[in-house]
Amino acid sequence: MVTQAVLFDTFGTVVDWRSGVSRDVQTFASRRGLTLDPDQFALDWRARYQPAMEQVRSGSRAFEPLDRLHLENLRAVLEAHQVPAGSVSEADLAWLNGCWHRLEAWPDSVVGLTALRERTIVGALSNAGVSMLVRMAKFAGLPWDVVVGSDLSRAYKPDPRAYRFAAVLLDLEPSEVLMCAAHNSDLVAAREVGFRTAFVPRSLEYGPGQDRDLAPEADWDFVARDLVDLASQLAP
Amino acid sequence: MVTQAVLFDTFGTVVDWRSGVSRDVQTFASRRGLTLDPDQFALDWRARYQPAMEQVRSGSRAFEPLDRLHLENLRAVLEAHQVPAGSVSEADLAWLNGCWHRLEAWPDSVVGLTALRERTIVGALSNAGVSMLVRMAKFAGLPWDVVVGSDLSRAYKPDPRAYRFAAVLLDLEPSEVLMCAAHNSDLVAAREVGFRTAFVPRSLEYGPGQDRDLAPEADWDFVARDLVDLASQLAP
Repeated sequence: MVTQAVLFDTFGTVVDWRSGVSRDVQTFASRRGLTLDPDQFALDWRARYQPAMEQVRSGSRAFEPLDRLHLENLRAVLEAHQVPAGSVSEADLAWLNGCWHRLEAWPDSVVGLTALRERTIVGALSNAGVSMLVRMAKFAGLPWDVVVGSDLSRAYKPDPRAYRFAAVLLDLEPSEVLMCAAHNSDLVAAREVGFRTAFVPRSLEYGPGQDRDLAPEADWDFVARDLVDLASQLAP
Repeated sequence: MVTQAVLFDTFGTVVDWRSGVSRDVQTFASRRGLTLDPDQFALDWRARYQPAMEQVRSGSRAFEPLDRLHLENLRAVLEAHQVPAGSVSEADLAWLNGCWHRLEAWPDSVVGLTALRERTIVGALSNAGVSMLVRMAKFAGLPWDVVVGSDLSRAYKPDPRAYRFAAVLLDLEPSEVLMCAAHNSDLVAAREVGFRTAFVPRSLEYGPGQDRDLAPEADWDFVARDLVDLASQLAP
């Protein structure tokens, strides 16, 4: 079966969330005369991401858009970093929360996606929402053909419904879809529903001390150095 | 309020459905040695479009994707043109039905959308489905930031739910959205939900004998010659 669409995880796989979040935390702290460790703040904020989505995945909470989960987590991280969330204006909170829309692409992402787009549908299959993905794409110059946000399926990966929804939306068989991610767990779930799989390591996603997803943990259909390499491997 | 997104009707406004459908009907007829009037066939097929969607809009029928409505209508038009639909293979029917994914843009569309995309979100808000819109965009080179297909809202324009759904999806107030269409009725509905409006005449959409939508029928916020002109009018 020929691959008709390559769908990408975004945070970490296509864009560098840690640097972007850290940059805006630094700006926020400077404006307010606060002393914050921006890199640690970014990691701590991100650490609350999976637990928040897990509440939705487990059914203990109804679906909430990721922007809202991010905002709740932001308030908690501010408190943990000794900044009372109540001392920050709603406008400042909204601005800082928007940092997840203002993330730079990894250096190879735009070139790789552009090459892939010449011969296949190239889309985002992300736990971000559609509006977040559209703004992120404009900020980083990502040439998506389609963005499949979690607010469409109302399911967070690795919930299998998120992957199946994307295949149905694109009118494709699962085997015609290739999922690309820097996270083995994403590919485990994608393979489970019948997608093909491509692993791209992003060994600096969590910074120099990263201890996870440094290598493929299964016999994924493709393992590529980066998105340019993936485009080469998929060339006819 | 500043326009944050320009959303476009597609069939007729951005792409020339009549020529594309006629071209593939001609190919179909030639391959099978049939005598068909491709232009008339295209018009007759399109004439069944609004009545089919109206069944969904009125609630007399559950939502069906546009590809399916097109296929039902194709069978009926074949019969009306003295081609028993049962004499055509499913593969040939599917191929011909796919002509709605293979439509050329009007000459100004890609240039105009590309210019607009420099400073705003540019999206399709169409009665087509997402997969149809994605394939159409790749065929015609349309640089959408986002495609809002009818299968997402499960509502066919001018049902107000289709417009409201798009604004919510993009996390925008209705007044931040500009709807562009070659059809006054689309703009009536868009204005009703609070969108701004732009009319672009496409006086050859239905061929040389066109008698509708030759001019704006209300004081739309913008009236432009074509999409390049619209981009100029929206330039800062």
